[in-house]
Amino acid sequence: MILSLVENYSLQLDGIFQALADPTRRAVLAELGDGPASVTELARPHDMALPSFMKHIRLLEECGLIRTEKSGRVRTCALERGRFAAVDGWLAEQRAIWRGRADRLEAFVMAEQETDPK
Amino acid sequence: MILSLVENYSLQLDGIFQALADPTRRAVLAELGDGPASVTELARPHDMALPSFMKHIRLLEECGLIRTEKSGRVRTCALERGRFAAVDGWLAEQRAIWRGRADRLEAFVMAEQETDPK
Repeated sequence: MILSLVENYSLQLDGIFQALADPTRRAVLAELGDGPASVTELARPHDMALPSFMKHIRLLEECGLIRTEKSGRVRTCALERGRFAAVDGWLAEQRAIWRGRADRLEAFVMAEQETDPK
Repeated sequence: MILSLVENYSLQLDGIFQALADPTRRAVLAELGDGPASVTELARPHDMALPSFMKHIRLLEECGLIRTEKSGRVRTCALERGRFAAVDGWLAEQRAIWRGRADRLEAFVMAEQETDPK
């Protein structure tokens, strides 16, 4: 299946926002902001069976917010900070739309003042 | 049920990120960035039955990203821009964690250099 860039970007945002919509996953991201950690270390503060915790880890990896690497019996996770740029980018787009609207309103008011000077 | 501020903030983030994890809902937010619009206008570009579309609108309203008001038979939607600050805030928190780590690494390197001058 060939996806356009726009569709692909939209699918990425779906995955990233979905990943962020959960307190356990946000806690893992915050923890990894402090440096790489093993799945065992990351799981410790969470009252959850390991298979359930692994689902969160996989979801974070699938959307690209973290990468994991297995060495022997230890799977280490690390943050992919670059991925956060997609969220920044989306927020910036929204603000550009708001700004565009403000600019048009300003242009309208200026034009009104010019055609109808007091 | 009494929720702590932290729990409440976390629940808000769950709702907001969940709301953003869908292309239709992101399109509605982008559309409303340009100014308020009726549900009918907002629904037009989406190939979707009105009840399905209304679910998206309700979800956006529940998490506070939009407000809606019914006047006669027309429900008008407007963006709640302030709500986007929760996303900014969360991103800023993550970056503060990253910065804290970088600062500690720097302090460590400085201390090493002081105790072991060439």
